Amino acid sequence: MATAPTTFKLVLEYDGAGFEGWQLQPGGRRTVQGTLEEAVARITGQRVRVTGSGRTDSGVHAEGQTASLRVETRLDAAALWSALNGVLPPDLAVVEAERMASGFHALRDARSKLYRYQIWNGPVRSPLRRSRAHALSRSLDLAAMRRAASDLVGTHDFASFQAAGSEVQTTVRTLLRLDVVGEAGGVIDLEVEGTGFLRHMVRNLAGTLLQIGSGRRSAESMPALLAARDRSLAGPTSPAQGLTLVRVRYDGPGGV
Amino acid sequence: MATAPTTFKLVLEYDGAGFEGWQLQPGGRRTVQGTLEEAVARITGQRVRVTGSGRTDSGVHAEGQTASLRVETRLDAAALWSALNGVLPPDLAVVEAERMASGFHALRDARSKLYRYQIWNGPVRSPLRRSRAHALSRSLDLAAMRRAASDLVGTHDFASFQAAGSEVQTTVRTLLRLDVVGEAGGVIDLEVEGTGFLRHMVRNLAGTLLQIGSGRRSAESMPALLAARDRSLAGPTSPAQGLTLVRVRYDGPGGV
Repeated sequence: MATAPTTFKLVLEYDGAGFEGWQLQPGGRRTVQGTLEEAVARITGQRVRVTGSGRTDSGVHAEGQTASLRVETRLDAAALWSALNGVLPPDLAVVEAERMASGFHALRDARSKLYRYQIWNGPVRSPLRRSRAHALSRSLDLAAMRRAASDLVGTHDFASFQAAGSEVQTTVRTLLRLDVVGEAGGVIDLEVEGTGFLRHMVRNLAGTLLQIGSGRRSAESMPALLAARDRSLAGPTSPAQGLTLVRVRYDGPGGV
Repeated sequence: MATAPTTFKLVLEYDGAGFEGWQLQPGGRRTVQGTLEEAVARITGQRVRVTGSGRTDSGVHAEGQTASLRVETRLDAAALWSALNGVLPPDLAVVEAERMASGFHALRDARSKLYRYQIWNGPVRSPLRRSRAHALSRSLDLAAMRRAASDLVGTHDFASFQAAGSEVQTTVRTLLRLDVVGEAGGVIDLEVEGTGFLRHMVRNLAGTLLQIGSGRRSAESMPALLAARDRSLAGPTSPAQGLTLVRVRYDGPGGV
C-alpha cells in the first residue's frame, strides 16, 4: 500500500564553484537541483521534483537556499536530513530539514531573501578569499555607496538591473534593505534583502555601486538610472563568486 | 657591471590546497617555494633561493608566511611586490615586501610564529567552510580543552607531538600561548603561538585536544603525556586544511 506523500522543507548550504547553478539542465551538467533530486531518489527510491526558493546562477554560493519536496517515505525529517547528508557530495549539505503542511512550496511561499555580495578591497588580491569575494583594490568611498544604496531601498522598477534578455511579467521589485557593511581597504559586504529579485539583479546592483564607490559614477545618479529602465546604462555584472544566498524567510513557523 | 644583491623580506598568503607544501621538491611537484623562485626568476632574470620562516606541509594555508631572498635587481621593494603579484598564480600572493639589511634570514631570525587551527563544530558538515576548517560534529567540552592547553604553554619537551620519523637535535620547544577561541557548536579556533615548532606539532596538539574535548582523554592527562615523550600515546594528526600560518614575528622594525 502506498504511503501518502510528505512535504519537507530543506535548508541548503553549497559551495557554488562546482555547480552550474541551481537549476536542472539537460546534458548531464552538474547542478544543485539535479544533485539533490538524485540523492532523494537514492534514499527514497522515488524521482521527485525538488523546488528551490529561486535559482542561483553558476558559481553563486548559498548558506541558506531553501527547497521543498513532496515524497512518499516513511522517514521523518531528522532521518531524511541525516540520510541526505550521508550521500550528498562535500560541496552540498542539508543544514535543516522540516516536515511541512502539504501546501508548502519553497518558491511561492518565500517572503523575502537575503543575499550577501562580498568584496575584498585590500591592496593585494587575497588567495584565501578569492573563492568567496570579488577582489577590487581601488579606493572606495563607502559613504557615496551608502547614499546611492538608500535610493534603491523600497519598491522600484529595477529594469536597469535585470540581465539582458530576461522575460518576466514585471520588473518591479521591493528591496527591504541594502546595507554596505565593512571598511574601505578590507572586507566589504553588501547585504541586500528583498521580497524578490530579477536575474543578475544583486550582481548588477553591486557592479553599479562599485562604480559609484570608485568615483566613476555619481552617488546621486541612482534615481535617474532607475527611471531610465535601461540595462545598458547601469554598471557591469559583478563576478558570481562574491554572491551568497544567506537566508530565505517564510511566514510563521510552518512546520507540522 | 653587476649590481650588489639586495635582501628582501616577503610576507606571503597562500591557499594550501593546490600546493604540495612549502618546500621545493624533485619531480616537478607544485610547491610554494618552487612557484616563488620561478616568479623571481621571471622578473629578475636570476635563479635564487627563497628561504621560508619554516616549512608548511601539503594542504596547510598561510596568511603570513615570511620569506627572505637576496637578488641582484634594480627594483625596489614596491616594484618587486607589484611585479611578483603580476606573475604569481591566483592561489599565492605577496602581501608585503620590504628591503632588509643584508644579514636578514627568514628562518634564522624568526622569533615566533602564530598558527590557527580551525574546527567547524556545527551539527552538519559545512560546504563553505570545508576547505579551511576540520569538521567535527561531536559535542566538545571547551573548558576541558582550555585546562589541558594551559599545561602545554611554556617550555616543554614536545616529543610526544612530533611527527614519527623526524630527526631534530632537540624536541624542546616553547609555546607562548595556546588559546581555545570560539564556542562549542560553532567555529572554534586553536591559536597557537610559539618560538618554534616540530613537524606536525600543531596538528598533533589539535588532535589530542579534540580527544580531550570529546571526553576520550582526560584534561589532566597532559603533563604525563608530555613526560612520556612517546608519539604513539598522543592523539591523531588533525587534517591539514584546518591549519593556517597566521604570522611570523621578527625583532625590531628590520627594514632599511
